[in-house]
Amino acid sequence: MIIVIKPNTPREQVEQVMEEVQKLGYDPRPIFGTELTVIAAIGDERTHHTLTSLNAMPQVEKVIPVQKRHKLVSRETHPGDTVVNVDGVKVGGNNPFSLMAGPCSVESEEQLLSTARAVKAAGATILRGGAFKPRTSPYEFQGLGSEGLRLLSLAKKETGLKIITEVLSERHVEEVASHADILQIGARNAQNFQLLIECAKSGKPILLKRGLSQKIDEWLLGAEYLLAHGNGNVMFCERGIRTFETYTRNTLDLAAVAVAKKESHLPVIVDPSQGCGRADLVRAMCLGAVAMGCDGLLIEVHPHPAEALSDGQQQVDFAGFAQLVKELQPILSAMGRVA
Amino acid sequence: MIIVIKPNTPREQVEQVMEEVQKLGYDPRPIFGTELTVIAAIGDERTHHTLTSLNAMPQVEKVIPVQKRHKLVSRETHPGDTVVNVDGVKVGGNNPFSLMAGPCSVESEEQLLSTARAVKAAGATILRGGAFKPRTSPYEFQGLGSEGLRLLSLAKKETGLKIITEVLSERHVEEVASHADILQIGARNAQNFQLLIECAKSGKPILLKRGLSQKIDEWLLGAEYLLAHGNGNVMFCERGIRTFETYTRNTLDLAAVAVAKKESHLPVIVDPSQGCGRADLVRAMCLGAVAMGCDGLLIEVHPHPAEALSDGQQQVDFAGFAQLVKELQPILSAMGRVA
Amino acid sequence: MIIVIKPNTPREQVEQVMEEVQKLGYDPRPIFGTELTVIAAIGDERTHHTLTSLNAMPQVEKVIPVQKRHKLVSRETHPGDTVVNVDGVKVGGNNPFSLMAGPCSVESEEQLLSTARAVKAAGATILRGGAFKPRTSPYEFQGLGSEGLRLLSLAKKETGLKIITEVLSERHVEEVASHADILQIGARNAQNFQLLIECAKSGKPILLKRGLSQKIDEWLLGAEYLLAHGNGNVMFCERGIRTFETYTRNTLDLAAVAVAKKESHLPVIVDPSQGCGRADLVRAMCLGAVAMGCDGLLIEVHPHPAEALSDGQQQVDFAGFAQLVKELQPILSAMGRVA
Amino acid sequence: MIIVIKPNTPREQVEQVMEEVQKLGYDPRPIFGTELTVIAAIGDERTHHTLTSLNAMPQVEKVIPVQKRHKLVSRETHPGDTVVNVDGVKVGGNNPFSLMAGPCSVESEEQLLSTARAVKAAGATILRGGAFKPRTSPYEFQGLGSEGLRLLSLAKKETGLKIITEVLSERHVEEVASHADILQIGARNAQNFQLLIECAKSGKPILLKRGLSQKIDEWLLGAEYLLAHGNGNVMFCERGIRTFETYTRNTLDLAAVAVAKKESHLPVIVDPSQGCGRADLVRAMCLGAVAMGCDGLLIEVHPHPAEALSDGQQQVDFAGFAQLVKELQPILSAMGRVA
Repeated sequence: MIIVIKPNTPREQVEQVMEEVQKLGYDPRPIFGTELTVIAAIGDERTHHTLTSLNAMPQVEKVIPVQKRHKLVSRETHPGDTVVNVDGVKVGGNNPFSLMAGPCSVESEEQLLSTARAVKAAGATILRGGAFKPRTSPYEFQGLGSEGLRLLSLAKKETGLKIITEVLSERHVEEVASHADILQIGARNAQNFQLLIECAKSGKPILLKRGLSQKIDEWLLGAEYLLAHGNGNVMFCERGIRTFETYTRNTLDLAAVAVAKKESHLPVIVDPSQGCGRADLVRAMCLGAVAMGCDGLLIEVHPHPAEALSDGQQQVDFAGFAQLVKELQPILSAMGRVA
Repeated sequence: MIIVIKPNTPREQVEQVMEEVQKLGYDPRPIFGTELTVIAAIGDERTHHTLTSLNAMPQVEKVIPVQKRHKLVSRETHPGDTVVNVDGVKVGGNNPFSLMAGPCSVESEEQLLSTARAVKAAGATILRGGAFKPRTSPYEFQGLGSEGLRLLSLAKKETGLKIITEVLSERHVEEVASHADILQIGARNAQNFQLLIECAKSGKPILLKRGLSQKIDEWLLGAEYLLAHGNGNVMFCERGIRTFETYTRNTLDLAAVAVAKKESHLPVIVDPSQGCGRADLVRAMCLGAVAMGCDGLLIEVHPHPAEALSDGQQQVDFAGFAQLVKELQPILSAMGRVA
Repeated sequence: MIIVIKPNTPREQVEQVMEEVQKLGYDPRPIFGTELTVIAAIGDERTHHTLTSLNAMPQVEKVIPVQKRHKLVSRETHPGDTVVNVDGVKVGGNNPFSLMAGPCSVESEEQLLSTARAVKAAGATILRGGAFKPRTSPYEFQGLGSEGLRLLSLAKKETGLKIITEVLSERHVEEVASHADILQIGARNAQNFQLLIECAKSGKPILLKRGLSQKIDEWLLGAEYLLAHGNGNVMFCERGIRTFETYTRNTLDLAAVAVAKKESHLPVIVDPSQGCGRADLVRAMCLGAVAMGCDGLLIEVHPHPAEALSDGQQQVDFAGFAQLVKELQPILSAMGRVA
Repeated sequence: MIIVIKPNTPREQVEQVMEEVQKLGYDPRPIFGTELTVIAAIGDERTHHTLTSLNAMPQVEKVIPVQKRHKLVSRETHPGDTVVNVDGVKVGGNNPFSLMAGPCSVESEEQLLSTARAVKAAGATILRGGAFKPRTSPYEFQGLGSEGLRLLSLAKKETGLKIITEVLSERHVEEVASHADILQIGARNAQNFQLLIECAKSGKPILLKRGLSQKIDEWLLGAEYLLAHGNGNVMFCERGIRTFETYTRNTLDLAAVAVAKKESHLPVIVDPSQGCGRADLVRAMCLGAVAMGCDGLLIEVHPHPAEALSDGQQQVDFAGFAQLVKELQPILSAMGRVA
C-alpha cells in the first residue's frame, strides 16, 4: 500500500499515520519528497488489514493499493493454461475451439430436441438452454424449472451433447448439477458469493459470467472465490457490460478476453448473443471474439426466434447458425485453432 | 408495443409482421406514414408475450415498448404514500424522518454497543450493522455471521433501537429474520430474484438497495417481485450507481429519489456512505438527500473508522455523526419534516 | 510517482527502470517489500515528464501518479472563496445566491423579453439564452446567431439583467463577449482547449460546464487552463454526466458540487434542466443542489415549453419558475444563504 | 413520432395534444388501446419540429422518435461502400487494408523520420503524428505545432507516406490542410460542430473519431454534419468509449465497427492504441478489429516508448510494429482482405 499524505502536514501527524499502519500489521516506510510525503506500507495486502480505512484520517490524501488481489486464478501462480474437462469435452489450452449453442430458454421437448440436433450437426459440442430464468419483471416467463432440466438430460441422451444451464439459487445447485455438465453463473449473480461458494462445492465445471458493471479485477476475484473453495474447473464468460450505448443491449468488451487470458490461466468464453442483443450483429461479434483469442463461444439458437419466449431478438435460427459456424472456420484456422 | 418497419418494405412483408403480432396475442394496427410504416400492437404488454422477439424478423427496424412494466409498486395503482411499520417505528408518509445508523460490519460487542448508544443519543431510531458481509475478495473479512446477529439482538435489547442487517443467502433468511426488523437486500443481490422471493415470504420489512448498474425501471421491477410475492413492506434505497467517475466510490443518483417518489408509493431511503465512499462528503450528501425528499438516511458510523474491518474510509465517528444530525435539522424543517 | 515492478523481477531490471526515472528528471527511491518492489520517483509531477510512459517497459506492472495535477484552481493554493464579479452582480462567497434563468434558445424578441421580465420578477439576476446552439443533428434549429446576441443585449437594456450565453467557436468569442457578461463553455466543448484559451483571453467571466463524461479531475484541469491563461473569473457548472440510466437525460452528479467546493476556491453553479432533462424533476433537483452548497442555479424557462424550438421537455413555464423560486427560500435560509 | 398519453387521460386532453402535434407540422393519428392511448404523428422527423417538447405537457407520458436522424451517411441512401481517396491511397471498399501508423506526438525530426521509415518498411501507407496535441492538463507537452507540420511534410517527401494529423482549432484548418492528407478530428472535438464544418469546407479527407461518451447515433450525426456541408470523404474511427472499467484506458467498442458498417457506407478505422491505452494489448485488439471487418487501423509507434513525450504506455516500438503487421496477415487473408 502507498499512503499519500496531504501537503504541509506536520511531521508528528505523519508519524501518527505510521503508528496506525504498524498497528494494522504493516511495516511503514516514509518517503519525504519535494512535493509530497508518502508512506510505503510493506506487507501482504491480501492477508493483512485493508488499509483503505486510513482515508478516514484527516491528514491522509489517499491510500493506493499496489498489489493484485487475486492469487489462485493468476498466471503468476499457475503459468500454464488450465483445461476444463466437461464430461470428456475439453475446453481451453490447445483443445478444439468450443461451440456451446442452444436456445435462451428451454420451451418444449420439440423446441429443445430440434435445436440440439441442429447445433450438433453444425459442429457444437455443448448444448445451452435455460431452465431457471432470471427475468427483470416478475410477469415474464420464468423458465420451465425442473421440467426444463429433465428435457436437457433427454437432449444429452439423444445427441451426446454436454449440457450447460444456469443456476439461480443455492437450493437448486444439487438438482441442476445432477443434470448439467457445466453450471452457469449469470451476470446478475456474478457477486452472489453464497451461490458461488455452493456451486464451487458441487465439484462441477463452472462458467462464470461477468457482472453487468463488474470490473475485470472483480471478475477475477469472483473466480478466486471458486478456486479458494476448492473448484478449479472454472471458465470465464465475457457477455458485455452496461454502458451508455443503447444501439446494442450491452457493450461486448473484447479487450477483457485478452486481459483475462493474460492475467489468468483459466479458459475464456464469449457470449455474443447477450453481448450485443441483436441477431444481426452476432456473426460479426463471433469473428471478432475468435480473433481476440477466446477458447469458445456461447451462442443462442432458436428454431423460430420471432416466437421465442425470451430474448428472441438475439437468437439466430438453424440456418443462421450453420452459416455462422462455416464463416468462423477461416478465422479459427488463422488463429491456429481447430473447431 | 410499437413496431417500426424498415423503409421500402413491401406490403406483404408488413402483413407478415401483423400476422405474427396477432399470433402472439395482440391486435395489430398499421399506420402508413410518409416516411415510415409502424404497427401499433394493442394489448397488455405485461401479460402478453414480449414482442421484442420480432426484432428477429429482417423487415423489422425496431420494437418499442410503450407501457410501464411495474404495476403494484406504481403510484397509478396506489396513489397514497405507503408507510412501513418497523416494529413500531414508522417509515414514510408524514412520519418523522428515519435515521438508520451504525457500523458497516459488526466487529465486537463493545464496538456495536458503544455505537448503538452513540447513534441513539444523536437521534437514530434504527441500528444498522452487517453480520454477513458480501466482500469482493474471498480474503477480506466476511463478517461475524450468526454471532453478529446475536450482538445485534443484544444491542436492540439494550437500546430499544430497531435492527436492519443484510441478508446474503436464501438459507439465512429465516435466521436473519429472527433477529432483524428490516431485511436489507444489498446492491450485489438486487437482481438475485430467488433471494428477493424468499425475503418477501418472510413477511418482514425489506430495504431494497439499487443495483450497481440498475436502471430505475429495473429497480422498480425488483420491488414488484417483492409485492407480487405478497410483501408490501418495502423501502427503496438509493446507494449510488457505478459510473466512470473515480473521485467518489459510486455516483449517488439523487434524481432517482425524486423519480422513485414520483413513480412509486414506497418510501425511499438514501445511503450516502456507500453513495460517495468518503467520510468527508457524507455530510453534504445527507443535506442534499434530505432536500430531494427522501424518507430516511442509512449512515455508517464507527467508533474508530481508521481501524474498521471494512470500509473505514466512508464511516464517520461518533462526534461526526452527532454534528451531522444537528446540521440536518434546518434542512429537515425547511422540508416540513420532523427528525 | 510510484512505479510498481512486476513480481520476481531481477535486480538489474529494477535498476534499468531507476535509470530511466532519473533520465526523465526524477530522483528514484526503491522500496523492496515482502511481496513487491516499488520505486518512488521524487519530483514535481506537474513540471517533469509524465512517467506513465514507463508502463511500456516489460518489467513495470503499473505507474501510479500521486500528486494532484491542478494548482491554480486548488484551495491549497488559494484557501478563500473566489467571488466572480458579473458586471456588478457578485457570484460566490457569501454573496446572495445566483439565479440564472431564461430560455434554452433565443427564439424571438417577444419570447426573450417576456421571459426576461418574468424571471426578473421572480428573482433572477442573470438572463440565460442560447444564440449559437450546438445541436446533435445538422437538421435541428441552430440558433439565431448574431441576431440572438442583439436580442440579449436588448433584454439587458430593458431589464438590467446580466447576460450569460454560450460560445461555440473561437471566432465568435469577440462578438459574444461584446454582448454577454458571462461566456458559457458548453459540455461538448469542455475539452476544446483552443476555445478555452480564447475565452480566457477575453477577460470576461466564464462558466465552464462539465463534459458529458468528464472526470472531476479533468474538469478542474479545464479550469486550470483558464487560470493559467490569465483569467480567474471562472465558475464551474455541474450539468449531469452520461451514464447507463435513461429515465433522466443525464445523471446530475451532486457529489461533484461538494467535491468542487472542497478542491477549489471557484464558485459552483448547477444546471438542473440539462441535468435531468425533464421539467417535472427540475424543482426537486434545485432543492437538492442548493442543499449541497452550490452558489447558483442555471434554469431553463420558456413562455410555452411545448412549442420551444429546442429542449422544450426540460423547460419550465413562468408560473412554474415563480413557484420554484418560492419553494427554494426555506432551503436557502436553512443553508444560511440569501436569495 | 409516437406520443404516449398517461393512463386515464380524458379525451379532450388527448385532443389538446393532437392540436399541438398539428400546429408543429405533423398529422396526428390517435390509437386508443386497451391499456394506453398513443398518438402517431405522421411526418418527416428530420425536417419538422422535434416533438420531444410535448413532454412538457402534463398528460404526456413520453414522446418516442421512430425515425433515424441521419440521412446522407446512411446505407439506405447510398448502398455501396464509399472509397476515400487519400492522395492516391484508397481507403474502404475492396481496396487494400489501410495501415496508418506513427508516433502519438511529433517530437523531433529524427524521431519522426526514423518512425516513418520503420512503419513504411513494415507495410504502412499513411503516417500519423500529432503536431497540435489536446492535453488534459495545461502543463503537459502541447505538441510542436507548426514545426510539427513541417516535419510531417518532410517525412512525406522522404518516404511517400500520406499524412494524417489532428486539427484542434478552426483557425488551424487551413494550415493543417496544407500539410496533411487526412484531417483527424479527435474524440474531445467530436461534437465541436464549428470545427467539423470548417474541416468539411477544406475538401480534405476527414477521419472522425468517436467521442468519449458518444452514442453511435450521435457519431453518425457528426459525420452527417460533414456530408451536409459538402464533404463526403469521411472515415469513422472507433477509439474506445469511457466506461467504469479502469484496467484499460477506454473500452474499445468493436460492435460499433459492425454497426457503422451496417448503418453507413463510409469506411471504418479502428484505433487500438487509444482504445486500450496499453501497448501489451494492442496486438490482440488489432486482430479482433480486423476480424470485425474494419477498413484500417491507426496504430501508435515510437522509437523508444518509455521516453515518449505523450502516451508512451500505449505506443509499440519498431520491432513490435513489424511483428504485429506480420501477425495480422492470416486474419486479413481469412477476411478476404489484402494488406
